[in-house]
Amino acid sequence: MIQTEEFGNMLLLDGMVMTTEKDEFVYHEMIVYVPLYTHPNPQKVLVVGGGDGGTIREVLKHPSVTNVVQVKIDEKVVEYSKQHLPNIASEYSNPRVELSVGDGFMHILNSEDEYDVILVDSTEPVGPAANLFTKGFYAGISKALKENSIFVAQTDNPWFKGDLIRDAIHDTKEIFPIARLYTCNIPTYPSGLWTFTLGAKTHDPLDVNVSRFFDLDTKNYTPELHKASFVLPKFV
Amino acid sequence: MIQTEEFGNMLLLDGMVMTTEKDEFVYHEMIVYVPLYTHPNPQKVLVVGGGDGGTIREVLKHPSVTNVVQVKIDEKVVEYSKQHLPNIASEYSNPRVELSVGDGFMHILNSEDEYDVILVDSTEPVGPAANLFTKGFYAGISKALKENSIFVAQTDNPWFKGDLIRDAIHDTKEIFPIARLYTCNIPTYPSGLWTFTLGAKTHDPLDVNVSRFFDLDTKNYTPELHKASFVLPKFV
Repeated sequence: MIQTEEFGNMLLLDGMVMTTEKDEFVYHEMIVYVPLYTHPNPQKVLVVGGGDGGTIREVLKHPSVTNVVQVKIDEKVVEYSKQHLPNIASEYSNPRVELSVGDGFMHILNSEDEYDVILVDSTEPVGPAANLFTKGFYAGISKALKENSIFVAQTDNPWFKGDLIRDAIHDTKEIFPIARLYTCNIPTYPSGLWTFTLGAKTHDPLDVNVSRFFDLDTKNYTPELHKASFVLPKFV
Repeated sequence: MIQTEEFGNMLLLDGMVMTTEKDEFVYHEMIVYVPLYTHPNPQKVLVVGGGDGGTIREVLKHPSVTNVVQVKIDEKVVEYSKQHLPNIASEYSNPRVELSVGDGFMHILNSEDEYDVILVDSTEPVGPAANLFTKGFYAGISKALKENSIFVAQTDNPWFKGDLIRDAIHDTKEIFPIARLYTCNIPTYPSGLWTFTLGAKTHDPLDVNVSRFFDLDTKNYTPELHKASFVLPKFV
């Protein structure tokens, strides 16, 4: 954890920026609200990774959500975030949250027909997160998901990790009828342009009826940005 | 000029990144094609600044353009760019280009009813470029422009320069019937999120008929991205 002048406290893992107090809202709103607004009634949500707590904080704002299971390989990240990022790791005592310490891949392989939405809020695909970016993982996600369900994984940036994104969207297309890539700007991540890969069994994020959006106190996400975030720069 | 491993040659002015060989296409396509596609018949274009040559290179790809006047306060930037950024400063010998060394503000104050499109491709609002971000400048632009014309100015990033953007859009609204802000991702600029302020006398960039777009060999710009670039994150 380092203190920065421009971005407040900044969490690093293996030398890579995970989140900062000032810009965390962009990542967390975009990984959560795009799938949660696309699904007509998300109730049970699995978060793989995301030990800073920002993703579950946003998930819990959605009124239909009854349970959030978070699987985290390293409990220390959660403890450290509670201490130094209290506005991000703010919901760990919420009774709708179940924190499970263990391997996200194994948790998914042992789940079947269980979740409405799965969010892969992982680190870069090196070390413990390497097997989160494989076709077997996407197949496991599909099995762990109920009918009509949706998953989203953060899939790094197109300037330096084009191959990773190409593989992720290719593998997702082989397993899910609907596969889409969307982006947002995160100033403290490499290149400032971040991608998310979304797989859906039935609900297309591009066909969400805007009238269904309800008001949340967001700082980045809007219904219009939901749709615009899928319009990619040509090289992407 | 410095050589970088990830972005090729990089031009700095007053210690700030102006452009790099690898990502220059984003900035230059976005400052040029958004207004040039919005205008039904852009013929005479003024570029203030833009000494690396990338903006005039893109302007000249538009088939209706007959003249580009570039006003640059420091001729050395042009010479240095020709030498070290040959793929960017590639059109200075084009007969449709007229390079004028001098003060952009004064050039605009001395012009009347002359240009279809004015592009302000300036440095940050410090030193010689400071008076490019004033209401008098926008009023001068309006006078220098013909009827039905459009201007665009680069207006920095919303993470650190929110005040500048607020003033620019406010001043533009006072002078032009149509005032819009749009963004793009530029990895080598602060925060990775860049804004452009557009003022138009009659043609709204949001109302361009997509059928009017013709095919250009772009790497970032598309007709869909043209519209999506005006959808702003909520905090912006």
